Amino acid sequence: MSGYEIPKSMKAWVLGDPDVLELVDKPVPKPGTGEVLVRIDAVAICATDLEIINEGSPALIEGELPFNKNFTPGHEYMGTIVELGPTVDEYAVGDRIAVEIHAGCGRCERCRMGMYTSCLNYGANYDEYSKGHRANGYTTDGAFTQYAVNHVNTLVRVPDFMTDEVATLIVTAGTAMYGLDVLGGLVAGQGLVVTGAGPIGLLGVAVGKALGADPVILTDIVQDRLEIGKKLGADHVINVKNTCPVKAVREANSNRGVNFVLECSGAQNAVNDAIRMVSRGGRVCLAAFSHGPASVDTKYIVANNIYLYGIRGEGKSAVRRAASLMKQKRFDASLVHTHTFPLSDLPTGLKYAREKIDGAIKVVIKNQE
Amino acid sequence: MSGYEIPKSMKAWVLGDPDVLELVDKPVPKPGTGEVLVRIDAVAICATDLEIINEGSPALIEGELPFNKNFTPGHEYMGTIVELGPTVDEYAVGDRIAVEIHAGCGRCERCRMGMYTSCLNYGANYDEYSKGHRANGYTTDGAFTQYAVNHVNTLVRVPDFMTDEVATLIVTAGTAMYGLDVLGGLVAGQGLVVTGAGPIGLLGVAVGKALGADPVILTDIVQDRLEIGKKLGADHVINVKNTCPVKAVREANSNRGVNFVLECSGAQNAVNDAIRMVSRGGRVCLAAFSHGPASVDTKYIVANNIYLYGIRGEGKSAVRRAASLMKQKRFDASLVHTHTFPLSDLPTGLKYAREKIDGAIKVVIKNQE
Amino acid sequence: MSGYEIPKSMKAWVLGDPDVLELVDKPVPKPGTGEVLVRIDAVAICATDLEIINEGSPALIEGELPFNKNFTPGHEYMGTIVELGPTVDEYAVGDRIAVEIHAGCGRCERCRMGMYTSCLNYGANYDEYSKGHRANGYTTDGAFTQYAVNHVNTLVRVPDFMTDEVATLIVTAGTAMYGLDVLGGLVAGQGLVVTGAGPIGLLGVAVGKALGADPVILTDIVQDRLEIGKKLGADHVINVKNTCPVKAVREANSNRGVNFVLECSGAQNAVNDAIRMVSRGGRVCLAAFSHGPASVDTKYIVANNIYLYGIRGEGKSAVRRAASLMKQKRFDASLVHTHTFPLSDLPTGLKYAREKIDGAIKVVIKNQE
Amino acid sequence: MSGYEIPKSMKAWVLGDPDVLELVDKPVPKPGTGEVLVRIDAVAICATDLEIINEGSPALIEGELPFNKNFTPGHEYMGTIVELGPTVDEYAVGDRIAVEIHAGCGRCERCRMGMYTSCLNYGANYDEYSKGHRANGYTTDGAFTQYAVNHVNTLVRVPDFMTDEVATLIVTAGTAMYGLDVLGGLVAGQGLVVTGAGPIGLLGVAVGKALGADPVILTDIVQDRLEIGKKLGADHVINVKNTCPVKAVREANSNRGVNFVLECSGAQNAVNDAIRMVSRGGRVCLAAFSHGPASVDTKYIVANNIYLYGIRGEGKSAVRRAASLMKQKRFDASLVHTHTFPLSDLPTGLKYAREKIDGAIKVVIKNQE
Repeated sequence: MSGYEIPKSMKAWVLGDPDVLELVDKPVPKPGTGEVLVRIDAVAICATDLEIINEGSPALIEGELPFNKNFTPGHEYMGTIVELGPTVDEYAVGDRIAVEIHAGCGRCERCRMGMYTSCLNYGANYDEYSKGHRANGYTTDGAFTQYAVNHVNTLVRVPDFMTDEVATLIVTAGTAMYGLDVLGGLVAGQGLVVTGAGPIGLLGVAVGKALGADPVILTDIVQDRLEIGKKLGADHVINVKNTCPVKAVREANSNRGVNFVLECSGAQNAVNDAIRMVSRGGRVCLAAFSHGPASVDTKYIVANNIYLYGIRGEGKSAVRRAASLMKQKRFDASLVHTHTFPLSDLPTGLKYAREKIDGAIKVVIKNQE
Repeated sequence: MSGYEIPKSMKAWVLGDPDVLELVDKPVPKPGTGEVLVRIDAVAICATDLEIINEGSPALIEGELPFNKNFTPGHEYMGTIVELGPTVDEYAVGDRIAVEIHAGCGRCERCRMGMYTSCLNYGANYDEYSKGHRANGYTTDGAFTQYAVNHVNTLVRVPDFMTDEVATLIVTAGTAMYGLDVLGGLVAGQGLVVTGAGPIGLLGVAVGKALGADPVILTDIVQDRLEIGKKLGADHVINVKNTCPVKAVREANSNRGVNFVLECSGAQNAVNDAIRMVSRGGRVCLAAFSHGPASVDTKYIVANNIYLYGIRGEGKSAVRRAASLMKQKRFDASLVHTHTFPLSDLPTGLKYAREKIDGAIKVVIKNQE
Repeated sequence: MSGYEIPKSMKAWVLGDPDVLELVDKPVPKPGTGEVLVRIDAVAICATDLEIINEGSPALIEGELPFNKNFTPGHEYMGTIVELGPTVDEYAVGDRIAVEIHAGCGRCERCRMGMYTSCLNYGANYDEYSKGHRANGYTTDGAFTQYAVNHVNTLVRVPDFMTDEVATLIVTAGTAMYGLDVLGGLVAGQGLVVTGAGPIGLLGVAVGKALGADPVILTDIVQDRLEIGKKLGADHVINVKNTCPVKAVREANSNRGVNFVLECSGAQNAVNDAIRMVSRGGRVCLAAFSHGPASVDTKYIVANNIYLYGIRGEGKSAVRRAASLMKQKRFDASLVHTHTFPLSDLPTGLKYAREKIDGAIKVVIKNQE
Repeated sequence: MSGYEIPKSMKAWVLGDPDVLELVDKPVPKPGTGEVLVRIDAVAICATDLEIINEGSPALIEGELPFNKNFTPGHEYMGTIVELGPTVDEYAVGDRIAVEIHAGCGRCERCRMGMYTSCLNYGANYDEYSKGHRANGYTTDGAFTQYAVNHVNTLVRVPDFMTDEVATLIVTAGTAMYGLDVLGGLVAGQGLVVTGAGPIGLLGVAVGKALGADPVILTDIVQDRLEIGKKLGADHVINVKNTCPVKAVREANSNRGVNFVLECSGAQNAVNDAIRMVSRGGRVCLAAFSHGPASVDTKYIVANNIYLYGIRGEGKSAVRRAASLMKQKRFDASLVHTHTFPLSDLPTGLKYAREKIDGAIKVVIKNQE
């Protein structure tokens, strides 16, 4: 990076009213203590981006936060460090890194437990009492731009051989890993169902298989995605369009329930299905935002001693564990990446992601200066 | 117990069709290897007994078990050991003991983890392939009778000073303890809400306070029960008849969410309330059977990284920990006991429990020969 | 605190060569972001203070840190907040607080797990690459002075009714609590041996009993301290001057091993005794610095599946849990406090603590302006 | 297996005085409730077998058990089920299985926690108060014979493609897995040092790498074994014959300590080295029996908040997780197997194992009728 010159201003997409994004010039920000300036090389579009742009951040207790205007969305990104803030010696200028979405305040009860994605000062980063919490592209400026400031806590190294596009998937894999962590971590030799073959679900298959889960069963209604799931390690795939998912899962697992379900579909009946896919005493991780409340058989949950874990994002340093598996080439995350557009063409990228045009799964925006 | 003579036959209430209980003579059973014969001295009526008698056991996957006829219900009991089966040296004849409801098969994956209330051979105790699972008064004969055989794994010592009536509450306190265990155990100095002031809820308050939870907040709609909750250690009680429970809880806890909710009401909106009583990253234990499915805000659970733990009964030796607190007189469980009837008068006792006559909370049946 | 004026300079004891402390004038420090200025009202003398003054901090990997000159020791203290740094709204001027010893960097792998007393940047707080780690009185200025700056993460509220002297013991109780936490937390109804009746050991008895351990057994060679242990909740005390501690413990526990040992003596044979006090599969926490290496029967540890947990200080917010028990008056920590001296008389206080004059256990220095 | 006829008697090696093994005829045993009769197809020789034959079982509290005469050693074995005892439907005649060493009593506090290798009734299997504990080849008859009775709890399925010889290594891999489990299980992306390249150490490398540990570093003094370690997944191997192991490990890990050490050497300075290989807050599992007590720097353990986990054997169903990894062909355990002898030639096999003749690592005894 020697000789690299940081410009004074940069292009950034800024959200106005719902679904109104404008490309403007903004000053390049400066890193503070413990922070670095990242030149964004690639950013992936997440389904939640579409929601944030359309209806606002799903992160918070209702009524706590209005529609967040005048900021830059985009949260699954990677780039190159171009400037170090004070006290930073963990990284050097020129390092390629991926970025975790959440930086906790480091001061609340949750952050003190390592649960920084559940920071109790979530969103409290706007005024003189700012505690330093950031959720990139949710509550603070994100990555549909050229540069971003990030705390060293959110950085994860990207190995040389890995493409920019694949590196944007590290955080996605980290979310899947976090889900498996809260399920207890000891997945080797245990049956794991992943419901929903979106990017988190597909990488949930990959991470689960890498850690030795057996069998790994993937359900979805799109056959093409199920085929990718097979390549990422699914032992069985089930197209639930015309099948009872619970019955199909049990048939795929010697007619028994599995130990673990990683729910990545957000479907209306997802919880009721998941609790019937596990055996008595089984565990379910809810990793997908659903739409509206669901009817849930709570009596079944009690009678069968089932644990349900809602997870917000990618806590407990799970991203680093996932990054290591990708560095060790345990699975081929590039299978999840389908399309690439330049930053100037973000609207097209969003359209592909929203309408799943041409089989789009993960659409990546590359920063072309 | 020297000179005590075990009779050949005994009186037992046997369930026929729904709500039909008959008092009959049955042979006194013989203890097998690792088992003892217990003379039942007292048995408490649980709300689940009423359900079992009326509609069958709530324990199992739907369709797995028909209405269980021709057996003796009753599962919260204590008594005196009158005979030892082969290999038993952990207890002696004459020992007073309370009895855990569940004996696991000891062979399935859950039993091997200590989760014997989630035994995968639940109910598989009827034929030549019996694995030894028992759920007293659920799937095997229970305690509305004079004698019962139990495995040593289910026994808990009763100290001399404790009355028979109070000793029937050891298992109830153990269920509350199990709930706090799955919530993580480290409740000292943490806010705990108990929703529902039935016996498990009231003893949940007592156990939570004994372990140092602060504040302990109890909600219910019956003021008399809330008053008992205060005596058992509740720092705040909230009558939710005319109040928003979430708002009231937050006001009672310095306008913040608590870390833990122990849900003991089974109320229709219980889960949605509970997840809003905890702060982001909080944990909820569901300890009560609800009636029918509930509408649950699953998106809120995900966005706020909330964990929900359904518990079936009293696993992981929690009953022994609860019994120890009661032996150490950390709380006065007798406050929960309101009425006593002789075994011959079981129908009256059930009526009191069902209709909550005369403020009935815990109705105990004493075995009066 | 209205009208309270913070002076420009303060008296402080500063360490020169080993055992040379000098009372000097120093400027009162200013709180930075997330920090407060504390007026020190009371500080207790810890055995480690004597070691730090005599031979240096025991905290670090050998050779990593030279004898730490030119700083102020003292780490068990409480006081009153007199000034808030930027962004602090968790506390107000006038709040009485106790202070945890360790503030982690918040950036290393351990801090991200909540293990801030094991911060990988321990001691890295001296230069431009300072990561913000502080160990009061170990690696940064401590409390044998009038004012100190502390991060909000290290503060714990002191209730009105509690004396300054007792409040200095909150951190000591927190260390005992941390020890019980790492042992698994579920101590109710379990046998617990505390070896060594110094302040941590005595408060280990108190916290263990408050959490329901049964029996709690305390060993030491000083009968007076054992008597205090009884008052704090020990069910059995064993003077091991002329007794085999292992044999005596087993006799006091129905001839069985216990589940947990909290080792607070640092005695030469402490580990070998502790591993024989627990039953197979038992757990031992080492909470005391010993002097020099010990001969340890490692084969016994393996053959009996014993876990040993060394703990450094008071991690994982255990101090807050301990403070809550003290706020709830679960035990009388004042029994551990024996002597008080003014700040100007620190040398006398240290002499009492070192030579255990007049039965000294906890000697407290009060700040008398 | 149709038509297979179980003979009435079998050949068995029986231990008399130390180092005296005699081949005798014994009746074939009968399986009881929950048990099966196994035709032993292959058994591997473990270093502990050599110790048991020479000086007795290392398992128990000193003085608790005399030298165990008149029994058959051998504990790492696999075979074919030839008869089912009452209630067994988990397996069928003809199934190939490997056998865990320990069957717990299922009644003590440890068994109820899933810690059946730490059964408190260890060795209590001889008389009318037998609780059913078995440690094959330690306290009950083992596998240097043709048939053995085993409880279903100890059985693990062997896939068709796996050779008998490799299947004897399932339990060895399970011990390594148990070690990683107690270290916390989340080894992906974490540095792991395995000290000692015996069979457990080598399979510790394999399992650790399969679970994503990075880097995996293996130390030993035998270069040939280190080379096998490389093939099993070690990123770095260190011959510590002429090197400081601590220094070499840190150099191999970017000059930092690792998170985890799996100690499999039993060497005199093993604990002191291991605690210096981990970073502050790191964890060490002691999986090898050492010879005699070692000098241990306990102060260092406390100052650096290090946890040490002694493990006895293969608890918590870890063998099943390891077996699954082998079924999924995550590593080639056959690399550890070096020699094979028939049952009649057991003495030669023992000699090869004891004297490491011809580079012997794992010597397997095949049952040739």
